[in-house]
Amino acid sequence: MTADEAAALIQNADIVGFSGFTPAGAAKEIPTAIARRATAEHADGRDFKIGVVTGASTGDSLDGELARAHAVLFRTPYQSDHSLRAAINKGETKFFDMHLSVLPQQARYGFLGKIKYAVLEAAAVSDDGEIVLTTSVGATNTFCGVADQILIELNQRHPAELHGLHDIYQPLDPPHRREIPVYTCSDRIGSPTLKVDPAKIAGIVLTNRADEVGSFKETDAVTAQIGENVARFLADELIAGRIPPGFLPVQSGVGNIANAVLGALGANPNIPPFSMYSEVIQDSVIGLMQCGEITFASATSLTVSPSILDEIYADLEFFKQRMVLRPQEISNHSEVVRRLG
Amino acid sequence: MTADEAAALIQNADIVGFSGFTPAGAAKEIPTAIARRATAEHADGRDFKIGVVTGASTGDSLDGELARAHAVLFRTPYQSDHSLRAAINKGETKFFDMHLSVLPQQARYGFLGKIKYAVLEAAAVSDDGEIVLTTSVGATNTFCGVADQILIELNQRHPAELHGLHDIYQPLDPPHRREIPVYTCSDRIGSPTLKVDPAKIAGIVLTNRADEVGSFKETDAVTAQIGENVARFLADELIAGRIPPGFLPVQSGVGNIANAVLGALGANPNIPPFSMYSEVIQDSVIGLMQCGEITFASATSLTVSPSILDEIYADLEFFKQRMVLRPQEISNHSEVVRRLG
Repeated sequence: MTADEAAALIQNADIVGFSGFTPAGAAKEIPTAIARRATAEHADGRDFKIGVVTGASTGDSLDGELARAHAVLFRTPYQSDHSLRAAINKGETKFFDMHLSVLPQQARYGFLGKIKYAVLEAAAVSDDGEIVLTTSVGATNTFCGVADQILIELNQRHPAELHGLHDIYQPLDPPHRREIPVYTCSDRIGSPTLKVDPAKIAGIVLTNRADEVGSFKETDAVTAQIGENVARFLADELIAGRIPPGFLPVQSGVGNIANAVLGALGANPNIPPFSMYSEVIQDSVIGLMQCGEITFASATSLTVSPSILDEIYADLEFFKQRMVLRPQEISNHSEVVRRLG
Repeated sequence: MTADEAAALIQNADIVGFSGFTPAGAAKEIPTAIARRATAEHADGRDFKIGVVTGASTGDSLDGELARAHAVLFRTPYQSDHSLRAAINKGETKFFDMHLSVLPQQARYGFLGKIKYAVLEAAAVSDDGEIVLTTSVGATNTFCGVADQILIELNQRHPAELHGLHDIYQPLDPPHRREIPVYTCSDRIGSPTLKVDPAKIAGIVLTNRADEVGSFKETDAVTAQIGENVARFLADELIAGRIPPGFLPVQSGVGNIANAVLGALGANPNIPPFSMYSEVIQDSVIGLMQCGEITFASATSLTVSPSILDEIYADLEFFKQRMVLRPQEISNHSEVVRRLG
């Protein structure tokens, strides 16, 4: 199926759940085709806007293209795109800011309306509906569960050997929920593949487009000093006995400063090798894994520069032993975060 | 020991952890005596101020008396006393507002400084250090664990038959924490008594003073309408299938409006009997338990009017089967709240 054929299935006012958490693993071909379709419909004088739900922010070919085509009816739970922000501020697009870990439950409850399509990027798909995801999980598993139909972008830039990187686990909703049995960053509690009803797969679009992750700025004097200060503070707390001798898992934010802080933590001789329970794995984590400073990283997305992703794919077995990508319902869940420290 | 003898043990700048979550179960005799002591010390030209840590707000004989005696160096995690608020706003008392469920862990970590004394109200104390608490748990268990010494107000207004009302459970700190195994409001996971090292008990003060809980205002036309609206909204959600047929546990706030809402929920024929996972059990819960509309209530304090408390104590076996008081670390924990719904 072509992306335009896939886009032709989607009707005005449909609500679509897209893969992606940051540009990592975000759908690209189909949203771009939906934007083209919206432009054509508008030129013919017809309404065409869809509800856009994803894991978090996405890349330009999703949030940017759809916003510039005036094709976004509403958007949740989070975005950071220039064009989309303008549409939201003009009141053209409704936006609801939501805690990322509660989005999947709200989608299952139907609070976002009926999700008609799940559009996702995959590294591999089997005939019986087992999908290997790419560089993020986000809320893709939930969207596939609640959607009537599933459209897949099979992206050949990502090797099928990503099988084993992901841990797909979805808790039952209250009042049937049990504990989320993650006790260390590296615990695996689910399945390496996303299992969907193969009858719901409406089409597969082949592509080779890279994640739209920009390169990080090099650490400068200011961010280096921030990183230095945070690392020294934590090292001092460790020496004072207020952090256990084994250190505790780190949750880092996203961006140039978080990148600099992680670098400084890795370089500080008073901080032992540590693990991460975070939502995003960034560039600096990879270098620290290679030199053994980071022993394990759990996240929902692998948001790294193109050249770093190439490095990872060139040594995939090494990195698969040291990272896991989880649904954002687990990576960002207060239960696990409070438990780990 | 008299309260003044107990107060004489406490020195300027000591940090004291008091029982109490709202006025329920708050220490009364010893804080009042500490306030007297502070006034006398100040009259003699000496400094005398203590750090005051409790579960939440307390009664006038704790926060009010100590504030008016200019005896509070700092206060955390929450207060609602008129005199203390004035001292905080003047800068005389330092105040830190903290999520109530994280306070115990921060006390164990030492982030509040060294807690020298735990001062608590008890309904019974055994020779081997098993304590039956009164109308709240709050952070009392943690204060007893971290304090050097323990001072007890044995309050004969509360029957020793309260044994079995409480469920004392304290999780291990990260990285050793496991799940908190509460899956329904009525699950009991700990001990009915608070077990302390008997060697740490520095004294016991006998008292008979009632909790300083004011009576609620009667529901008026406005609060009744608010209650009515909330109950109708929830009943409609139930009918629409967005709340499971068995309903979900309710978490109510504190005050006249929460009281009115609970009353309206109980009176609405479309809402089935329900359970509560909350921090405070208020007056209206008791009537709804008697008529079977509330099947179980879990909280950290029983903050009811004096006449309602008499009613509960007159039929204690009935109510002990329908309520549990937990440490605030459990009643207010995001893990359990997210799990229950």
